[in-house]
Amino acid sequence: MIIDIHGHYTTAPKALEDWRARQIAGLTDPSQAPKASDLSISDDALIESIETNQLAKMRERGLDLTVFSPRASFMAHHIGDFQTSATWAAICNELCHRVARLFPDHFIGAAMLPQSPGVDPKTCLPELEKCVTEYGVVAINLNPDPSGGHWTSPPLSDRSWYPIYEAMVAYDLPAMIHVSTSCNACFHTTGAHYLNADTTAFMQCLTSDLFKDFPTLKFIIPHGGGAVPYHWGRFRGLAQELKKPQLREHLLHNIFFDTCVYHQPGIDLLTTVIPVDNILFASEMIGAVRGIDPETGHAYDDTRRYIDATLNLSDEDRFKVYEGNARRVYPRLDRALKAKGR
Amino acid sequence: MIIDIHGHYTTAPKALEDWRARQIAGLTDPSQAPKASDLSISDDALIESIETNQLAKMRERGLDLTVFSPRASFMAHHIGDFQTSATWAAICNELCHRVARLFPDHFIGAAMLPQSPGVDPKTCLPELEKCVTEYGVVAINLNPDPSGGHWTSPPLSDRSWYPIYEAMVAYDLPAMIHVSTSCNACFHTTGAHYLNADTTAFMQCLTSDLFKDFPTLKFIIPHGGGAVPYHWGRFRGLAQELKKPQLREHLLHNIFFDTCVYHQPGIDLLTTVIPVDNILFASEMIGAVRGIDPETGHAYDDTRRYIDATLNLSDEDRFKVYEGNARRVYPRLDRALKAKGR
Repeated sequence: MIIDIHGHYTTAPKALEDWRARQIAGLTDPSQAPKASDLSISDDALIESIETNQLAKMRERGLDLTVFSPRASFMAHHIGDFQTSATWAAICNELCHRVARLFPDHFIGAAMLPQSPGVDPKTCLPELEKCVTEYGVVAINLNPDPSGGHWTSPPLSDRSWYPIYEAMVAYDLPAMIHVSTSCNACFHTTGAHYLNADTTAFMQCLTSDLFKDFPTLKFIIPHGGGAVPYHWGRFRGLAQELKKPQLREHLLHNIFFDTCVYHQPGIDLLTTVIPVDNILFASEMIGAVRGIDPETGHAYDDTRRYIDATLNLSDEDRFKVYEGNARRVYPRLDRALKAKGR
Repeated sequence: MIIDIHGHYTTAPKALEDWRARQIAGLTDPSQAPKASDLSISDDALIESIETNQLAKMRERGLDLTVFSPRASFMAHHIGDFQTSATWAAICNELCHRVARLFPDHFIGAAMLPQSPGVDPKTCLPELEKCVTEYGVVAINLNPDPSGGHWTSPPLSDRSWYPIYEAMVAYDLPAMIHVSTSCNACFHTTGAHYLNADTTAFMQCLTSDLFKDFPTLKFIIPHGGGAVPYHWGRFRGLAQELKKPQLREHLLHNIFFDTCVYHQPGIDLLTTVIPVDNILFASEMIGAVRGIDPETGHAYDDTRRYIDATLNLSDEDRFKVYEGNARRVYPRLDRALKAKGR
């Protein structure tokens, strides 16, 4: 089985975007503010948006199952206040849940959280709990910078995040550390902010002792770990300077990297320097990079081709990257699959 | 000849740091503010600080010449106002100039600028001009984020930066795009902020048409280009989405990467995906990562070993990386060398 642990609902029917536009307009003109119940999207519309997009490509590429979460760039936690985010997160999570129910063999949910800049992360717990107990999500997406590129929250090692971690541990949920749209003109969202956040989050973990407090906490750093694997020697050396244990001991029981790296040399590097037990297959399809690579004739984000082609992995390694590691790092996913005899 | 284009004066005598501490104290208590002339460092002290550190390692590693600039993390442009930075930059640039005069065969200067958050970059021109005409610097270090991790300046494509670029073009000076200390708790300085800035600067260039306005402008993105080479497919794909020319045409006449990547697989990747004409040897020694890699028994920042060992470069390629490209991208360096028959 091939499990893609990183897919977002980037192709939701336009009614969703329209509702969000009204919600944002309502922040300055409350007469325009919509109710959650004003949004109505039929099952048929959901089915079409998936069948012609993600599912079509999954079939083309031979991918079986996607861990599916709301569109990352649309989370936009910087907009409005907690209530704005709470309503928006509830809507987006419910849509992903419906997709997972409509396509139970191919999609399983991961939840976005109703984060808001300056608001205590523990306010996210009711939504998180609902998504676990009612929707059966197997992971959450945690935004280390709800300000959208101004980085006004404390690092992930700060105790204000601990209620989230306690819930993650209690529910056996990993978190993908994933920012949203940048509203800082310095940072292009998918070309700079995403990758920077990945590197930043890794370094926040490296300088802290977070995983001493939470030995079973699990973070997935997406986009191949940002700059981390390319600079693995730098990070090993920095850990040494900082008198931390070696990275394998210090971080690799808890941190995992996905394979959203859109060319063969990048995947070759990732699979050279990062232990295979810490690499989980993903493509972030349909996402930031949708074109065909003229150098290969294939989609940039068809990451399965790079995993299949790399000389660094044995068949057993590929099984881990495609399926085994996901089942280990996402225990609720494993249980959901086993309950269906998969 | 082996030219290291990225060395900082990280080992200056402690009197420099003490003077800076007094300058910072003077911001809140003007009675403590020192005069520039209060700093006195003898030639002997400079010589010792270099001979026992950078020059010793250059000899060990067989490096001939370093492009030498003030300590990057100490630029700290976020401290004080323009006058604070102006006095500090003048002191630091003069020290590097003295090092270059004391060791003319081994060091040649690059200037830091007296940038200050929210202050028009053109205020840096007098210091820049002095460093070129009086000190003979061959490059500048340009900080894309003088706020120190808050990213409050406009992107490098903004017209407010143009006076700097006009001077660079007029003087045949390349700029290394290099941030300083992070005062944002989210970003570790050398583990996150430096690499993030590299990626950010590259993407600012990618999304803009800066090099249409300045076809001969040259930027060096240090630290191996941040996350860029590892994600080269992503950036090629993003350029395509944004209807920009292919990256070689769009950016690689103007953007160059150094080799400050502290392990073999990183250098192998860099030399696989980036054309050899765009790679310049550097180690940033003595810098962020000073230890011995237990996996190799050699210093992490002994980057010559990786360049020598990589299978991706021919002898001709190595000449370009070690010397030829530096002479082309730093025309004033080439002229200075030729004037000495080198």
